[in-house]
Amino acid sequence: MREKQSHARDQLDALLESTPLATIALIRDAHPVALPIGFARIGDELVIHGSTGSPWLRELAAGAPASVAVTALDGILVARSGFESSFQYRSAVLFGSFRVVAGDEKVDYLQALVDTFIPGRVRELRASSGKELAATLVLALPIGADNWSLKIGDGWPEDPDDDVAAGGWAGIVPITMTYGEPVRAPDCDPAIPVPPSVLSMSGTVANRRG
Amino acid sequence: MREKQSHARDQLDALLESTPLATIALIRDAHPVALPIGFARIGDELVIHGSTGSPWLRELAAGAPASVAVTALDGILVARSGFESSFQYRSAVLFGSFRVVAGDEKVDYLQALVDTFIPGRVRELRASSGKELAATLVLALPIGADNWSLKIGDGWPEDPDDDVAAGGWAGIVPITMTYGEPVRAPDCDPAIPVPPSVLSMSGTVANRRG
Repeated sequence: MREKQSHARDQLDALLESTPLATIALIRDAHPVALPIGFARIGDELVIHGSTGSPWLRELAAGAPASVAVTALDGILVARSGFESSFQYRSAVLFGSFRVVAGDEKVDYLQALVDTFIPGRVRELRASSGKELAATLVLALPIGADNWSLKIGDGWPEDPDDDVAAGGWAGIVPITMTYGEPVRAPDCDPAIPVPPSVLSMSGTVANRRG
Repeated sequence: MREKQSHARDQLDALLESTPLATIALIRDAHPVALPIGFARIGDELVIHGSTGSPWLRELAAGAPASVAVTALDGILVARSGFESSFQYRSAVLFGSFRVVAGDEKVDYLQALVDTFIPGRVRELRASSGKELAATLVLALPIGADNWSLKIGDGWPEDPDDDVAAGGWAGIVPITMTYGEPVRAPDCDPAIPVPPSVLSMSGTVANRRG
């Protein structure tokens, strides 16, 4: 794919805000494994959470080396040949080991995670219980000066002159990731209003924030 | 995340058709690396392509063990606590080594890749040149009986009775990935009509096909 490297932290942050989905690579039993997980950027860390019962999260908690890929697919690049056709995308790959987040910071980070996935939701919810906190692992990967790589493919097709002269169409088909109309759970009384957090989210585009 | 395992090949195929984006994990210099790439399912194989100059694709071509994650984020599960909130998603993880696709099969697979990313595009394009074919690696990972795992999180929030009784809202905010209006490249004469392939794609939803 045609691409340029970026070393701009603000472009990295824009990408990390445009999707809640990361894929983590780690080594298990000498084999590579790729696993998806939700994440949030909190300051200079990429933060994930999950069950204390998850074997792979426990391996990360123990310091296993990891790589994290976060990708936004922004469009399909339609060129005048298959060879030049490609994607518009932004792709970050981070490297390092996660640390375990504990104590008050764990409570704060869990709230930040919820408010990343559903902005404004924390103030609508009760606090987490001690039992819930004990069942949850929160892990953070530092975003340092040199442990990440960012590639951005946002150009136009670069067809050779012959193909341009042949008169084929070229351009981009943009891709948008949109949050739709909320759907009430079967056990939720229809008299309960949709909360402001969910109302604000609905209809917004996620991957174009950057 | 609340989830159920599926062993249904048709559900795997539906997921693999709902996004062109995969993330591949491999081991390089004893460290895990996660890298994104476009893919297509062709029969019983997951197929990728890229430049023969790409070091990591060459490592895959040489038989390096790999894991491939394909994830569709279908919605945000809004529960009555942070703890129970989650995602609606479908996630496949495949394991194995890629084979190098060569000869006539390489030509066929490249066409299938283009027609996966832009359905109907191949018939609008010239054939690939020998030089283009020589510069391109096509790699295929078998989708066997037992080298993949599929998890589907498509349920409703499962809040405890206390939280339901407290009267908070719960439900789902669906996520859709949509192909937008095509944007013509600056070097493309406005007299050239948008081709049928691009017209058919525009306005369609990608991740809801399953």
